[in-house]
Amino acid sequence: MNDFPKHVDFNEEGPREGFQIEKKIYPLEDRARLVEAIADAGVKRVQVASFVSPRAVPGMADAGELSAAVKRRDGVRYTSLWLNEKGFERARTTPGVDLDPRLLFYTTDEFSIPNNNCTAVEMRDAQARWLDLYIEHGLELESAYIMTAFGCNYGGPVDVSAVTDLVRWIVDLCADRSVPLPQIFLADTVGWATPEELKRRIGAVRELAPEVRIGLHLHDTRGMGSANVYAAMSLGVDLFDASVAGLGGCPFAGHGDFSAAGNVCTEDAVFLCHEMGIETGVDLDALIEAARLAESIIGRPLNGRVMHAGSLSSYRGTT
Amino acid sequence: MNDFPKHVDFNEEGPREGFQIEKKIYPLEDRARLVEAIADAGVKRVQVASFVSPRAVPGMADAGELSAAVKRRDGVRYTSLWLNEKGFERARTTPGVDLDPRLLFYTTDEFSIPNNNCTAVEMRDAQARWLDLYIEHGLELESAYIMTAFGCNYGGPVDVSAVTDLVRWIVDLCADRSVPLPQIFLADTVGWATPEELKRRIGAVRELAPEVRIGLHLHDTRGMGSANVYAAMSLGVDLFDASVAGLGGCPFAGHGDFSAAGNVCTEDAVFLCHEMGIETGVDLDALIEAARLAESIIGRPLNGRVMHAGSLSSYRGTT
Repeated sequence: MNDFPKHVDFNEEGPREGFQIEKKIYPLEDRARLVEAIADAGVKRVQVASFVSPRAVPGMADAGELSAAVKRRDGVRYTSLWLNEKGFERARTTPGVDLDPRLLFYTTDEFSIPNNNCTAVEMRDAQARWLDLYIEHGLELESAYIMTAFGCNYGGPVDVSAVTDLVRWIVDLCADRSVPLPQIFLADTVGWATPEELKRRIGAVRELAPEVRIGLHLHDTRGMGSANVYAAMSLGVDLFDASVAGLGGCPFAGHGDFSAAGNVCTEDAVFLCHEMGIETGVDLDALIEAARLAESIIGRPLNGRVMHAGSLSSYRGTT
Repeated sequence: MNDFPKHVDFNEEGPREGFQIEKKIYPLEDRARLVEAIADAGVKRVQVASFVSPRAVPGMADAGELSAAVKRRDGVRYTSLWLNEKGFERARTTPGVDLDPRLLFYTTDEFSIPNNNCTAVEMRDAQARWLDLYIEHGLELESAYIMTAFGCNYGGPVDVSAVTDLVRWIVDLCADRSVPLPQIFLADTVGWATPEELKRRIGAVRELAPEVRIGLHLHDTRGMGSANVYAAMSLGVDLFDASVAGLGGCPFAGHGDFSAAGNVCTEDAVFLCHEMGIETGVDLDALIEAARLAESIIGRPLNGRVMHAGSLSSYRGTT
C-alpha cells in the first residue's frame, strides 16, 4: 500500500552545498541573489552558508557577511550549518542566521575523521554537549542527522544496526534531557541509497521512534535521486533536503571522489511532487529560474534536468 | 503489492540515439568499438544505427558500413531502426543487421509530421503495410512502439485513451493477420512520464492486452528516469530501452528543445537492478567502462551518474 503525503517540505541546501565545494570564490552579491530567488519561489527554508574553518573551506569564510546581506522574506528561515561548538557560537552571534539546532552523527570513523577530525564515537559523545549548549541558550532541538546512513566510500557498507543503534542513543539522550526530538534525517552522504534499502531503513527507524518525523538528505551520485524520493514518499516521508539545480555536484571531479556527489535536485523533486498532485508550496517555474541563475553564476552546465527541459506548464496552457 | 521481476532485459540504444543527434560525424571505428564494448559487457541486444535519410541525419549515412564493421559476439543481436519501407529495405539487405520487425505509432500529428512527415493516422495505416511486408519476408513481428505515449512537447498532454485506442487497433491488426504480438513498448519520447502516471498507463494497456509483454522506452528529460524504472519494475515490467552513459541527450541544447532529452542511462538502471537483487546478465563494471568510452568519443561530460561515481563493488571488496 502506498501512503503518499499530501504536502512535502523541502529544505534548500544548494547555496551551502554548491559553493562550499567550489575552488573558486563567487561574489557574495551573486550568492545572496540566489538565496533570494529561491525564497521568492516559495521555498520556506534555505541553508545559506556553513560556519566552518575558513582555512578548510575558503568559500565559506564570509558566511557571516552573506547571512547578513540576504534580503529576508517573511515566513522564510535562513539557516546555516556548523560542525563544532565554535561554529555554532559564530552562527549564534551572527545577525540574519535562523538557528536550527541539530545534532550530527557519523556511522563510520573512516568518514568522521576526514570530515570532522574525530571518531564516530567522539562525535556522538560531543552531541550530548551540543544538546546541553542548545538548552543553555534556550533553543529547541530541531533534528538529528545520521550521516553516511546507507554506506560510506571510505568505510564501506553500513549495517542497518549502525543506524538503529544511533537512533536508540539519540532517543535516550533526548529522553534524559526531557527534550522533544522532532526530526531524524537519514543522510545518504555519498550516494549509496537505493529505493528498497531506503524503505527498509525508514521502517527500522520508525519502529524505534514512531513519533519522530523522518527526513532524508539524498545525493544523486548514482542516479537514484528521483527513485529514492519517490520510494520514500510512498511510505509517507514528507521532508527532504535538496539543492536547486542539483548544486553540490561537480561534473569534473574524479571518478570515486565523493565531492562529485550532487544533491537531489530541488526543482526536479518539486516537479515529481506536482505531477503526483502533492503540494510543495513552491512555484516550479520560479524555482527553475533560480536554478538557471545558479547555473549562470557557477558558469557551467549543472545537473538539474527540469531546469534544462522546462516544466510542462507551457505545454498544458497553464501559464 | 510490489511485483518486482527476477530478471530485467535492456535493449541498448545508445549508439543509435547518441550519434544521430550529434552535428559532428564521429569515426566509424569509434562507434563500432562502442557497440563491441557494450556487447562485451553482457548486453544482449544493441541498436547499432538507423536507416533513415542521410540528408536528415548525416551521422547515420554509414549505417550499412557500421553494421557490417562491428565484430559480432555470439548470442548478441545487433539491430537497427527504420522509419519507412525504404529504410526497412536497406536494413533488410545489409549484412550484419539483425532485423527486429517493429511497428511504430504516434499519438499526435504534432509529433509525427516533423518526425516522420505524415499524420498519426497515416502512420497507423502504414503499419498494416509494414506488417504485411514483414510477413511477406517471413519475418516475425517483435514489437509495437507507441511514441509520445505520455505527452508531447508539440501536441501537449496525451490522453490515456489515445494510447488504449492504438493498443486495441494493434491487437486487432495482429488478430486479423493471425500473427502474435509479443511486445508493446510505451515510449516517453520527450520526457513527460512520472511514476504514478506510468503505472496507470501500464495498467490500462495490460487490461487490453494481458498476454503482451510491456516494454518501456524512457527518457530522463526531467530527471524522472530512475523513479520511472523503479515504479515500472514494481509492477513487474522487465524490459527497457536504455542508453549507455545516458547517450541521446545534449547538455548544450536549448531549453525546451526535445533533442536535449537524454535516454534513461543503462548502467544507472543496471546499478538499480543489481542493488535490488534483480539480475540483468550485465557486468556493471564493464558497462561503466563502455560508458566512459562513449564519453571519451563524444568528448564532453555525459549524463550518466554511476559512470562518474563508480559502482559499489570496490567498496564492498567484491572486485
